[in-house]
Amino acid sequence: MTVDTRFYAPLGALTLEAAAALTGAAVDGDATLEITGVASADTAGKGELAFIEGDNAGQVEFSAGLELVVVGEAARSRLPVGIACLVARQPRQAHSKIARALFKPRYLGPADSLAISPSARVHSGAVIYPGAVICSGAAVGEGTVIGPNAVIGPGVQIGRHGSIGAGASVNCALLGDFVTLLAGARIGETGFGVIPGPDGLEDAPHFGRVILQDHVTIGANTCIDRGVFADTIIGERTKIDNLCQIAHNVVLGRSVIVAAFGGVSGSVRVGDGSRLGGRVGIADHVVVGEGVSLAGSSGLFRDVAPGETWGGTPAKPIREWMREIAWLSKQAKTRKKD
Amino acid sequence: MTVDTRFYAPLGALTLEAAAALTGAAVDGDATLEITGVASADTAGKGELAFIEGDNAGQVEFSAGLELVVVGEAARSRLPVGIACLVARQPRQAHSKIARALFKPRYLGPADSLAISPSARVHSGAVIYPGAVICSGAAVGEGTVIGPNAVIGPGVQIGRHGSIGAGASVNCALLGDFVTLLAGARIGETGFGVIPGPDGLEDAPHFGRVILQDHVTIGANTCIDRGVFADTIIGERTKIDNLCQIAHNVVLGRSVIVAAFGGVSGSVRVGDGSRLGGRVGIADHVVVGEGVSLAGSSGLFRDVAPGETWGGTPAKPIREWMREIAWLSKQAKTRKKD
Amino acid sequence: MTVDTRFYAPLGALTLEAAAALTGAAVDGDATLEITGVASADTAGKGELAFIEGDNAGQVEFSAGLELVVVGEAARSRLPVGIACLVARQPRQAHSKIARALFKPRYLGPADSLAISPSARVHSGAVIYPGAVICSGAAVGEGTVIGPNAVIGPGVQIGRHGSIGAGASVNCALLGDFVTLLAGARIGETGFGVIPGPDGLEDAPHFGRVILQDHVTIGANTCIDRGVFADTIIGERTKIDNLCQIAHNVVLGRSVIVAAFGGVSGSVRVGDGSRLGGRVGIADHVVVGEGVSLAGSSGLFRDVAPGETWGGTPAKPIREWMREIAWLSKQAKTRKKD
Repeated sequence: MTVDTRFYAPLGALTLEAAAALTGAAVDGDATLEITGVASADTAGKGELAFIEGDNAGQVEFSAGLELVVVGEAARSRLPVGIACLVARQPRQAHSKIARALFKPRYLGPADSLAISPSARVHSGAVIYPGAVICSGAAVGEGTVIGPNAVIGPGVQIGRHGSIGAGASVNCALLGDFVTLLAGARIGETGFGVIPGPDGLEDAPHFGRVILQDHVTIGANTCIDRGVFADTIIGERTKIDNLCQIAHNVVLGRSVIVAAFGGVSGSVRVGDGSRLGGRVGIADHVVVGEGVSLAGSSGLFRDVAPGETWGGTPAKPIREWMREIAWLSKQAKTRKKD
Repeated sequence: MTVDTRFYAPLGALTLEAAAALTGAAVDGDATLEITGVASADTAGKGELAFIEGDNAGQVEFSAGLELVVVGEAARSRLPVGIACLVARQPRQAHSKIARALFKPRYLGPADSLAISPSARVHSGAVIYPGAVICSGAAVGEGTVIGPNAVIGPGVQIGRHGSIGAGASVNCALLGDFVTLLAGARIGETGFGVIPGPDGLEDAPHFGRVILQDHVTIGANTCIDRGVFADTIIGERTKIDNLCQIAHNVVLGRSVIVAAFGGVSGSVRVGDGSRLGGRVGIADHVVVGEGVSLAGSSGLFRDVAPGETWGGTPAKPIREWMREIAWLSKQAKTRKKD
Repeated sequence: MTVDTRFYAPLGALTLEAAAALTGAAVDGDATLEITGVASADTAGKGELAFIEGDNAGQVEFSAGLELVVVGEAARSRLPVGIACLVARQPRQAHSKIARALFKPRYLGPADSLAISPSARVHSGAVIYPGAVICSGAAVGEGTVIGPNAVIGPGVQIGRHGSIGAGASVNCALLGDFVTLLAGARIGETGFGVIPGPDGLEDAPHFGRVILQDHVTIGANTCIDRGVFADTIIGERTKIDNLCQIAHNVVLGRSVIVAAFGGVSGSVRVGDGSRLGGRVGIADHVVVGEGVSLAGSSGLFRDVAPGETWGGTPAKPIREWMREIAWLSKQAKTRKKD
């Protein structure tokens, strides 16, 4: 996916040569080629630099347009022919460093001096409470209420008839019509990604967005992180309770229910009409089908087929879980002496 | 309970006839009767419209003053005689639609243009930090500190010697004396209620309040939702840690302790002096007696008698839980070959 | 540890006699001695009043400089000789009352009238967004971005090249360089401590700080409480995800990872390079060695040696936990008839 310049200011292209100098990597290919963007290997297009972690080039899907990759020595030979490489000892770290030289999130400045930026487009029929901050390039549609001390970040687009609660904040995001954020919701923060660097842990930069479709409701103090290179997407009429965490690159379908303390890890997909009880956790990359129910407190580590009901930690079909609970309870009572 | 017009602006009464036209329901009774309020079936009084979900009219308690109900065809015949009905296919959805036509939460506007509304009554001995927003009709008592960027919603009443932390927000709530909210606490947001509608999920509107009695302390980023038609009540000297979730219509007694990540679902009642360890969850409608202890991480689905100590998920008396843990641990070690 | 007057305004010393009058305690020693500070018994120095709870004086470590203690009748005789005492029925409650008479947290007022206090030192190369509040005596270093509606409390010191997210708040804290707080993070609130008083529960006052070392990242809506009399310390390059709770007096080492919903209770210590999966909870006073991994959803109640991997609730070495899960699952399937 191409980096959305409404949210990330381009700082100018880098040649492979310059990128190599910046990171200590070696160029394998035409050193005058220009890097103009960053992306994941399965979506990168012309001028967009991807990276391959470790030696798993064999398992990665490559986009047809892939031209530029940061890669480790081990995986280099497995790349498709004709791809120009930066060969680095820590490919992801080098990629992050180059990415930061190419783009700067607009919410890191420069700052407007006015609470409502003159470059924001706020519909005359919107209601703006005192203390709300609407940054440069943002847009707010007709009938939408921006609550007291809410923050609409640079470039954020909000549709009609929405409601942004007191003190909520929105960054790097596109919101449809009739979207409700309760107080303190945090939309579009950087996801949790940690890269080992030479001096210890580093944060993985994020260049994606959050998409909240029409009629989505997000609970108080709930967090929806933006994607790394892709979008985090919450489907139409999906309803999320208070104090939930939806990680980067997650895709929730339509009319999904997530009860309080729900935690959905990175890149999880959840089908339409599924229901997550209170305090459900889903491990990263898990795929949950349509119409699935997960009992409260479940910790899910595996894919679930459509229509099933699971529970427990690690989660399993609900009957198996119930049977285990009942059996254990009975055994512990009757076999104390074992 | 009658809707508190300090928080919800009345938009004018509707006749049953007009309400039927709005929702596609049929009138069974005097179509000229006026609906002036909304309530639950067990509290509705003169002019207040209640609703009966599904066909469970048999199990619902009716208030003596009940006059007006939205009901499905199936349950209609089981209502007390003399009650005027709107007969709808989706009674709760129809009720919500009518409720929204009768009342508008004042926090949805119109907005004041000043951070401290001229119609707010702020005691001269209160301390108001920069960035605090105090909306129309709100009141702040002597010696209370309103922290930077905190938000006091329309009509909210706060007693004396309280402290509202930075960025906290309060809506549709009455706070006693010596109430402390730490930073980012969210009091009085809409609870999590989802109604199936013709196009997918819809939010259930909330017309209740939050009551925080004297000496209550609410932790940072904790959320206390307001009731649907009733009040969410936190009793005197109850202390709630950070990042907790207290749902709509909950009643906590006096000197209750709720440790971090505590989750109390809708309509739960907890007796005086009970203690919830870290990450305890309680399912909706559960009744917990006085002086109960729930071990950290418990997930409680059943009522607990006064004075008991429970643990585990699903929670049970602590000795049973301990015995199961010990038995399982021993068995798994000694019977590996089974 | 001596109370840091950048965060707590001294209200003047009290003699033992005056403190006794305030609390109803009896003086055992020179009643004209002056109390100028408060501390824990293991760190108290000249003029600093400590307390001993219950009758456990035998187990408490005493600082060499300890001079002044509030103690119950039962434990009095076990104190080292030469220590002046206030003898009280509820020592901790009496100590809290005296502490409140000695110091007042500066964030409780008086308030500045300007959003950026004239007494704050803000580097000309810092970026300050609209709505940010920077209180008296605070400092913000070069290149640091203070997001919209963020709150920097009185006396807070923030280093260079940091980033404070929208609506985040910081109290009683010292932040190094390159520290990132995502939106809504709550640094330095009062920890959760509850004291039984004559009328019910009371809050334990806190006089410590939070220290965030260089390159620390704190997730959205995460809370880091300040210490009671000591510091809560987050080591260099430690990365904490969204919606985590780090309690008072916790010390996390360097490059520790805490995933979403992590809960670290009071006085826990975690060694360098340890990793806490999602929704891990650690009970208070537990010591976790370096390089430990805790599986997602673990509830840890015991110390863990360096390099180990644990899981489950209550947590145990991961192989034991896995074995129990597998054994239970098999038994419940094959022995249904038992």
